[in-house]
Amino acid sequence: MKTARFILRRLNMLNLRSLDSLIELAFEEDIGIGDITTDATVPPSQKGTGGLLAKSSGIVAGLPIAERVFEKLDPTLAFHSLVDDGDKVVAGTPIAEVQGSAKTILMGERTALNFLQRLSGIATLTAQFVQAVADYDAKIVDTRKTAAGWRSAQKYAVRVGGAQNHRFGLYDGVLIKDNHIVAAGGIRNAVERARQVVPHTAKIEVEVETVEQVDEALDAGADILLLDNMPPGIMARVVQEVGNRAITEASGGITLDSVKAVAAAGVNLISVGALTHSAMPMDISLNLTLIAK
Amino acid sequence: MKTARFILRRLNMLNLRSLDSLIELAFEEDIGIGDITTDATVPPSQKGTGGLLAKSSGIVAGLPIAERVFEKLDPTLAFHSLVDDGDKVVAGTPIAEVQGSAKTILMGERTALNFLQRLSGIATLTAQFVQAVADYDAKIVDTRKTAAGWRSAQKYAVRVGGAQNHRFGLYDGVLIKDNHIVAAGGIRNAVERARQVVPHTAKIEVEVETVEQVDEALDAGADILLLDNMPPGIMARVVQEVGNRAITEASGGITLDSVKAVAAAGVNLISVGALTHSAMPMDISLNLTLIAK
Amino acid sequence: MKTARFILRRLNMLNLRSLDSLIELAFEEDIGIGDITTDATVPPSQKGTGGLLAKSSGIVAGLPIAERVFEKLDPTLAFHSLVDDGDKVVAGTPIAEVQGSAKTILMGERTALNFLQRLSGIATLTAQFVQAVADYDAKIVDTRKTAAGWRSAQKYAVRVGGAQNHRFGLYDGVLIKDNHIVAAGGIRNAVERARQVVPHTAKIEVEVETVEQVDEALDAGADILLLDNMPPGIMARVVQEVGNRAITEASGGITLDSVKAVAAAGVNLISVGALTHSAMPMDISLNLTLIAK
Amino acid sequence: MKTARFILRRLNMLNLRSLDSLIELAFEEDIGIGDITTDATVPPSQKGTGGLLAKSSGIVAGLPIAERVFEKLDPTLAFHSLVDDGDKVVAGTPIAEVQGSAKTILMGERTALNFLQRLSGIATLTAQFVQAVADYDAKIVDTRKTAAGWRSAQKYAVRVGGAQNHRFGLYDGVLIKDNHIVAAGGIRNAVERARQVVPHTAKIEVEVETVEQVDEALDAGADILLLDNMPPGIMARVVQEVGNRAITEASGGITLDSVKAVAAAGVNLISVGALTHSAMPMDISLNLTLIAK
Amino acid sequence: MKTARFILRRLNMLNLRSLDSLIELAFEEDIGIGDITTDATVPPSQKGTGGLLAKSSGIVAGLPIAERVFEKLDPTLAFHSLVDDGDKVVAGTPIAEVQGSAKTILMGERTALNFLQRLSGIATLTAQFVQAVADYDAKIVDTRKTAAGWRSAQKYAVRVGGAQNHRFGLYDGVLIKDNHIVAAGGIRNAVERARQVVPHTAKIEVEVETVEQVDEALDAGADILLLDNMPPGIMARVVQEVGNRAITEASGGITLDSVKAVAAAGVNLISVGALTHSAMPMDISLNLTLIAK
Amino acid sequence: MKTARFILRRLNMLNLRSLDSLIELAFEEDIGIGDITTDATVPPSQKGTGGLLAKSSGIVAGLPIAERVFEKLDPTLAFHSLVDDGDKVVAGTPIAEVQGSAKTILMGERTALNFLQRLSGIATLTAQFVQAVADYDAKIVDTRKTAAGWRSAQKYAVRVGGAQNHRFGLYDGVLIKDNHIVAAGGIRNAVERARQVVPHTAKIEVEVETVEQVDEALDAGADILLLDNMPPGIMARVVQEVGNRAITEASGGITLDSVKAVAAAGVNLISVGALTHSAMPMDISLNLTLIAK
Repeated sequence: MKTARFILRRLNMLNLRSLDSLIELAFEEDIGIGDITTDATVPPSQKGTGGLLAKSSGIVAGLPIAERVFEKLDPTLAFHSLVDDGDKVVAGTPIAEVQGSAKTILMGERTALNFLQRLSGIATLTAQFVQAVADYDAKIVDTRKTAAGWRSAQKYAVRVGGAQNHRFGLYDGVLIKDNHIVAAGGIRNAVERARQVVPHTAKIEVEVETVEQVDEALDAGADILLLDNMPPGIMARVVQEVGNRAITEASGGITLDSVKAVAAAGVNLISVGALTHSAMPMDISLNLTLIAK
Repeated sequence: MKTARFILRRLNMLNLRSLDSLIELAFEEDIGIGDITTDATVPPSQKGTGGLLAKSSGIVAGLPIAERVFEKLDPTLAFHSLVDDGDKVVAGTPIAEVQGSAKTILMGERTALNFLQRLSGIATLTAQFVQAVADYDAKIVDTRKTAAGWRSAQKYAVRVGGAQNHRFGLYDGVLIKDNHIVAAGGIRNAVERARQVVPHTAKIEVEVETVEQVDEALDAGADILLLDNMPPGIMARVVQEVGNRAITEASGGITLDSVKAVAAAGVNLISVGALTHSAMPMDISLNLTLIAK
Repeated sequence: MKTARFILRRLNMLNLRSLDSLIELAFEEDIGIGDITTDATVPPSQKGTGGLLAKSSGIVAGLPIAERVFEKLDPTLAFHSLVDDGDKVVAGTPIAEVQGSAKTILMGERTALNFLQRLSGIATLTAQFVQAVADYDAKIVDTRKTAAGWRSAQKYAVRVGGAQNHRFGLYDGVLIKDNHIVAAGGIRNAVERARQVVPHTAKIEVEVETVEQVDEALDAGADILLLDNMPPGIMARVVQEVGNRAITEASGGITLDSVKAVAAAGVNLISVGALTHSAMPMDISLNLTLIAK
Repeated sequence: MKTARFILRRLNMLNLRSLDSLIELAFEEDIGIGDITTDATVPPSQKGTGGLLAKSSGIVAGLPIAERVFEKLDPTLAFHSLVDDGDKVVAGTPIAEVQGSAKTILMGERTALNFLQRLSGIATLTAQFVQAVADYDAKIVDTRKTAAGWRSAQKYAVRVGGAQNHRFGLYDGVLIKDNHIVAAGGIRNAVERARQVVPHTAKIEVEVETVEQVDEALDAGADILLLDNMPPGIMARVVQEVGNRAITEASGGITLDSVKAVAAAGVNLISVGALTHSAMPMDISLNLTLIAK
Repeated sequence: MKTARFILRRLNMLNLRSLDSLIELAFEEDIGIGDITTDATVPPSQKGTGGLLAKSSGIVAGLPIAERVFEKLDPTLAFHSLVDDGDKVVAGTPIAEVQGSAKTILMGERTALNFLQRLSGIATLTAQFVQAVADYDAKIVDTRKTAAGWRSAQKYAVRVGGAQNHRFGLYDGVLIKDNHIVAAGGIRNAVERARQVVPHTAKIEVEVETVEQVDEALDAGADILLLDNMPPGIMARVVQEVGNRAITEASGGITLDSVKAVAAAGVNLISVGALTHSAMPMDISLNLTLIAK
Repeated sequence: MKTARFILRRLNMLNLRSLDSLIELAFEEDIGIGDITTDATVPPSQKGTGGLLAKSSGIVAGLPIAERVFEKLDPTLAFHSLVDDGDKVVAGTPIAEVQGSAKTILMGERTALNFLQRLSGIATLTAQFVQAVADYDAKIVDTRKTAAGWRSAQKYAVRVGGAQNHRFGLYDGVLIKDNHIVAAGGIRNAVERARQVVPHTAKIEVEVETVEQVDEALDAGADILLLDNMPPGIMARVVQEVGNRAITEASGGITLDSVKAVAAAGVNLISVGALTHSAMPMDISLNLTLIAK
């Protein structure tokens, strides 16, 4: 049995810092000055075991975060994962246990489940997209369409589901979109300006919608082309024309139904906003068993 | 034309404070040390208008929050709502405009849209539930199944969609669930303990799953009964038996398909987790138009 | 001998969080960049025992907070309570000991005493009020007249003194006062509006000053009546008329001299601002004994 | 009519920063997610005037802080002082008005009053001490016996009452007490060590309890002597012997009854803990008048 | 005359946020509870003009930050730049004026000067390096050898001095150093692993010390080569061999004396730690002129 | 072998708090969302030893801070100092080791070195000044010319180098400068005003530039005279005239070349801004050795 604590070490420490801010916001809004029901009804010395149980099937993601929730609320609780992030489970599978004060287990229950259910939902949906294009070279990547405060966590769930991350934010990757092109007076201007001021360690990606723009972007020296909302047929021609002069990425309302055709067009990457904005939560519950004193 | 600023005044100021923390988390994770693409390609003096456009139909929610995002990022931007939170729009409807520095409009675009799309999705789904039970007395209420950090915002969207809020968190309402009953050694004990220590201003709600528990809870003096996962038939009998001795609330995996039958059972309240955890985002885009100098 | 650490566990964890903010404010204002006298005169390796001694009699309250002060300042200090919060002590009673670095004991002394003296004062005064009405059914409750930042701590001291807490703040209880009544256009309007938007888990309390208002509030369905500044005679009549249609609470400048007469009027609750705003501090000192190396 | 805003400028800006932290703690604990009563009963567009009225007599202190409370809660409120901090008022005197949104006036009322009542109480008591020694040269000074988080505010109220401040905390003044003397192995050692490491800008004060200690401290070069709990007779002899070789300060349980005799002993300073730990609050109320739309 | 406020707009807003944290740390450590000298000696209503004067020659950098210091301390102060960041000044040149309360000008003086003197020193030294290689294609870039908390500010000063920025931190650029190579088991492994997990928007830079490593890195597909501590002769051969297969960057203890020879070797970039860790401050003073009332 | 942890205890705890804020700023700006190179190339389970090596000679300062950096980043790392703060080392001396996760050692390397190199540079320069005046009574003291956020750390390095600290900030010492004198209308006025409001525990220092001002300051009762930019000849006369009526401090652009002559003039103190604003960093590197699994 692996413990989630082991997994937690694999999370970047600084993700942990921003994750902690989010957990604190969650405690503030859910617990505030205290859980008045639990305070009134559960004796402080009562010990118990909270069993986390999958009630629908899917890919589990977020166990280290659930562990972190309980650890921050009450460091004396012991959390044991029974499966690992990335494991596929069916309804009825026990996925983790948390032992210790019955009071604090109940106080943390909803916050932990809110993370676990949503992140497992993302991993589950991501795995479906990855599976759908398994026969092609294209890789699935995520977008910046994440819930405020949840970027680290949701991008982590995407990796758990088997896809890769696009840039984390506006600060660590250059992506010149239509609005930037207009503001800069054309693709050539935009790419040149970026080349001058962006550190030499960054590649330059340009959003293109037409074949003419593809040529213009290649001429300007773009490293990556974002093919926005292109029909698969045109996309296939573009990909062939580009060859290995640039990396190609497809984008724009891609669904589980359409993703295979996009992959077949030969692009290197397919970015899918739905991974983080349209995943249904996985159903997971916590059941408390008292430990006799 | 109403401005969102007017609506913002209707939000509680302290919601605003916790909302601001969330917006700051969003800026940290999305913008960090800066938008390197926009810095490179958009002249600092360039002015523009960002038009927010509905690309699918639904109930708009979150305009004051979108306004707040732009205001916090750059107080010199001017935001004008063209519709009001709660208005039903069809695809193609312009819903708001933001004017000023093209740079900061582009920097705030994704953060604002991430709020607006998700909250409008919640309001839209909520309105469907409210509509489904319009012929009955039952009121739709939300749950604590919200995304960490988003409780205020998501509960606001539920009200925009026409439903009511349940307790905000663990601290402002007593809800004795099965785990509390076990820990306290029965419903009677649990209710009595709560009566002793909870301020006299709070009602006491008890989760019941069987008819025996209903009787026990009524005897113990519960003010509200949470009927958990009861078949509508049994629920109807329970409601009749309870009469006006207590408020009744139905709960447990209720969907748009099943909600009408639940309402027909005569309960006072129906709490629906899906409102906040399973709403699809509304599709909204921002298009920038440059303003000639 | 019970340790205060045991008691601390009984404090809600979130009280601890807000308490910690207050302790940090205290360190900032008292210690700032350091205790220059202690730095200059006390060798860093010098160990000692700080004995906390009651110099006047009363009910002790705040030992877990004093322990928390020393623990936050220097986690290597060991704190042992010799009495328990709620115990009555006479002048000359040793109440706790803190052992470890002589430097950090002296640096935390004033901050710990400032909490302990003030909270013990509140518990002592509260116990006098509780004792005064011991022959009646009325319960003593506190108010929101607490020192900024101290609400959790002062309300805790009130419970230690044997009384109960009223609502914690404006957010967890409905209390419609005269100003709200005026703004709403009468008691009926105010109660109805509250009924519509307040979660169904909250009772509604209404402040009334006259017999007419009592009737109006009962008609409107108020759950609790706050009888403000009523002479005991009138109060007794009101209580009888109300019967068990509502809970009754007396309020308004009630002192140790007047509280018995109020209780005799038959009210369920008596709220007393003086508990938290007019308690004299209990005199407690810290004496350091050096431990030979 | 002077405005409190003018007075606020006389407060140190950085006091303002720590004061703001305290006000935020107060809002968190009193308002939290919102004032549910006011939200339910007071229309958002309703304007009103809140009149602050003295209901007992005394010296007013804290108007700029009350103003700051309302300003932080709602910057659109207008606050006008009708008296000035330091003015003596009798019961029935209007002391200030706050105009604007009736909702936010009611939300800030208790927080503002909690400051104003307590600080005015301190100024009132301080003025009585200052008056008691008006015929002598001795100056009244405060101590570090302040409520956590309130040091700036309470020391401000002491100045408003006409006394002077002792050191602000442990970091900005050297005061060698009995415990330091023991730890350093005598007065001479303690003073010499302090002289070596304390910046040359600081004077050195030593607590003495006997005539022998007075001599030892003077020999060691103490700049100030703290005469702790000395009977006035002995104190008078000590003061004469010291002459102008050092400043003398009396300390230890000094009351309004005993302060005159202490002053008559000829000391330069008298420090009084009661100023900040035993002042009764001044009674002040806020009455709302609606402004017709 | 340009105002610094104009320049401030060119600073990234989020830099501003981290800059503000640093300024607040500076106020805390320099002003704390207040400037006791200024409080005592300068009347609160006294107005004045603080003239900032260069007392040595160099490139000015940091005027917007100096302005921000005064603005944060006292928003009523008016700051006017008389030169612009990047301008070369000689000793005796007035560079800016700040007008308003004499008290707050004096309170902010040292904090503002500490920024201005250090950042101008960096810009001045940077300009000397840039000038030294003006006849070559090589660009001067900075490193991560900045003072904690000052990264944004110091990298800004480097740009003001005419050089370019390398990656901002560990999160926005891949630079595989000797330690990474050892840990990964060789250059090939290291580059391949990076290629797999790093977003496709990032280039991969590898530190190489020998000609063999250069070949290995090129084979592995490195985009940029960091030539560490190579003698200019070898460096020139490497640069020729690399051709346009990769960008070349020289690094390692490069001084004003050695930089020309390095540039002559034909590298694309030269990174210089001394820019931020060894610049002498520029001498700048603030002189106050009182404004008669 | 002493460990740095021992030394850390000698640092004031509150310095630690402000130091921690600075370290967190450093992590934010250097690591942000993570070290993408190390994440990609170093296996999470890889252990290693990071050896800190002096590459130039000097006085080491900052080992406890380097330890703190690694401890905050990863509490499982073990840090061992091989020399002590204040020790003089030559190039090639190992000064400390840090053992544990190779990943976190590499992530903390630059932040730790940035502190250690700069603080050792300050201690080294300070020791040179102290050595230069070893034959005289004058003591070297620092100034407020420190890098924002670094005051505690830089003043600590000055003490490590053998000099003493002047006042820490504007709040803990009175220093009346020329601007204060002008604003107060003369030295006498300024000193008298300070005497009235400054706590009786503070000495009063006055900046004087001429012999007339010396007399005026002595007459006004100044405790300390700051002789600003006086030629050593005049300074010597002033010192003799002052005798033991006041402490004398020399100030103004004093260098290693000029400091001896200043000391020879007989002043008590010499304050030197260069200690903290013009020290060159000491060259220190970290070399990682892998530990076989």
